[in-house]
Amino acid sequence: MPYTPHDTTAPRIALVGATGAVGETLIGLIEDRAFRYREIQLVASPRSQGRTLRVDGREHRVSAVDTFDFSTVDLAFFSAGSDVSRKWAPVAAAQGALVIDNTNAFRMDPDTPLVVPQVNADALATRPASGIVANPNCSTIPLVRLLRPIEDRWGLSKVVVSTYQAASGRGHSGTAELHEATRAALANPADPGPQAEFAPTLAFNVIPFIDELLDSGFTMEEQKMLQESRKILALRHLDVTTTCVRVPVRNGHSEAVWIECHDVVDRAELVAALCALPEVTVHDRDAPGAFPTPRTIAEANDVHVGRIRVSPHNPRGCWLWVVADNLRIGAALNALQIAEELVARGTL
Amino acid sequence: MPYTPHDTTAPRIALVGATGAVGETLIGLIEDRAFRYREIQLVASPRSQGRTLRVDGREHRVSAVDTFDFSTVDLAFFSAGSDVSRKWAPVAAAQGALVIDNTNAFRMDPDTPLVVPQVNADALATRPASGIVANPNCSTIPLVRLLRPIEDRWGLSKVVVSTYQAASGRGHSGTAELHEATRAALANPADPGPQAEFAPTLAFNVIPFIDELLDSGFTMEEQKMLQESRKILALRHLDVTTTCVRVPVRNGHSEAVWIECHDVVDRAELVAALCALPEVTVHDRDAPGAFPTPRTIAEANDVHVGRIRVSPHNPRGCWLWVVADNLRIGAALNALQIAEELVARGTL
Repeated sequence: MPYTPHDTTAPRIALVGATGAVGETLIGLIEDRAFRYREIQLVASPRSQGRTLRVDGREHRVSAVDTFDFSTVDLAFFSAGSDVSRKWAPVAAAQGALVIDNTNAFRMDPDTPLVVPQVNADALATRPASGIVANPNCSTIPLVRLLRPIEDRWGLSKVVVSTYQAASGRGHSGTAELHEATRAALANPADPGPQAEFAPTLAFNVIPFIDELLDSGFTMEEQKMLQESRKILALRHLDVTTTCVRVPVRNGHSEAVWIECHDVVDRAELVAALCALPEVTVHDRDAPGAFPTPRTIAEANDVHVGRIRVSPHNPRGCWLWVVADNLRIGAALNALQIAEELVARGTL
Repeated sequence: MPYTPHDTTAPRIALVGATGAVGETLIGLIEDRAFRYREIQLVASPRSQGRTLRVDGREHRVSAVDTFDFSTVDLAFFSAGSDVSRKWAPVAAAQGALVIDNTNAFRMDPDTPLVVPQVNADALATRPASGIVANPNCSTIPLVRLLRPIEDRWGLSKVVVSTYQAASGRGHSGTAELHEATRAALANPADPGPQAEFAPTLAFNVIPFIDELLDSGFTMEEQKMLQESRKILALRHLDVTTTCVRVPVRNGHSEAVWIECHDVVDRAELVAALCALPEVTVHDRDAPGAFPTPRTIAEANDVHVGRIRVSPHNPRGCWLWVVADNLRIGAALNALQIAEELVARGTL
């Protein structure tokens, strides 16, 4: 029973951004995984104040973030966008809540650990100086989970990633716009439909541009994969380079990952190393269909990897094709697993 | 006036596969570019025999390939699939027609030149021993056109490509199935719709698998990019490695291309080298929107390139984002430009 009001070892929690796509996924995962809590409070922008949502069969009224008292909770999940986190996460931490932040706001802050529990759970051994634990970007999480054993066994020399990122990365409004723009394009092939979330249109299109442009010519989304991978894997000079592309998929990010190692890679050994990872499904029957796609992965809480190939003319180089549910693996599930780890370690 | 019945220097031509997506595009380009011909004959599978199509305002009846007399033409374009080419292109060549073949059937044949006119037009100086000129694969053509000047100036050390390939690569039935499956998914999110051309469904999905699987673990589509690039660029040991992915785009292939060179690459010089190429549009304003996408490229007969970035931590490495109309650049236009070159050189 996840709701355990009389268990004083179970945390009191707040979900900021409870009405968004990540917030809703988090509520579902709290129920599915029977995450134990003594009290839960749903928080969102003033716009959503007064809405009610069910958690574990009980109705909860949504509070507004700007008047919420974070001293009443032990743990606060933030998934309401970088601006909200930048403003309110330090307030929540100052009021005594430990924050798990889903946004980009504090990931590179040296006082804030950036955590993928399957990779660097040790970073959760002590309460962070900032009072905040950061959840990495959606594309970084599945990548580092697969890179870790490759670094350990063969040594990473270089990682080249091209992404295929779903509309749900922009939340409910992203998937809604993809649907609406697609309907428009089916009715009239030239009609771009609405372009508030994606411009140019994402309907029957691919857009090689996510987040803002930096002086380097890379986008922020591309830079995140480099900087976050280095921080999580504790490899300061790791060479990761990326092109991030939005594709007309509703949910589920994919990545074509080219990896070069210091040592020669044996394919069977690589498959075995990936199979040994927790919560990873390896697709490796040598037959058509033996590969993951966003619409066909069965276990949404696993990272899926297939098309595992060592280059015939470069035995230190290999390809992986990675698919992961960006709302779960890439956001809500990783955040909840951070919370589970904090509880297990008594760090709260 | 492209149709010049009394000009004995203009070739008599046959279009095999005239009713398909590439065939129709070829007819449009013959008209647009005023390609001069003395006589044109439309040929297709027996199923399409008797259909009529207009070329330059004149009605033409479609003949069946199995009874067609290729000795009545000087030049025969084949775009009816590998099986048809394998069976009938040698027959056409034996009957005296010079064949321009759009399929995979003869590309690696040493007696058959594999030609991208902007790259290796010299291969058309003499009539090929096989009587066949091969048109490369749709994804190879835009790639080698951009790699040529980079090899010449900086020396190619390695090329890593991830593709984003459109449904029209499977012809009319590919785009029709994408539309139908998308309608099904909009009505019922779980409905895959028809899966005759693409399996699993391509609607709101990406499929990291094109053509057949080879023993190496790579697909034939991926191997084509390696072997064809080596042959066209005359670089026998060029290191090209690829993951080929189908995306729910109607027409227009995209590629995220990571290139490593022997020399340090200066970005401004790279942009200038690409701008100097014929029939290439460089998108290089440093602003959102300054990148090509399949639905927004204006000049469909150009190769489009954007997101030109030199890696901050590897000055020998750079990214290109490439978009090209796969039915034009990747098939019909390249074939017609081969024909134009053959006529100009008097090789016919």
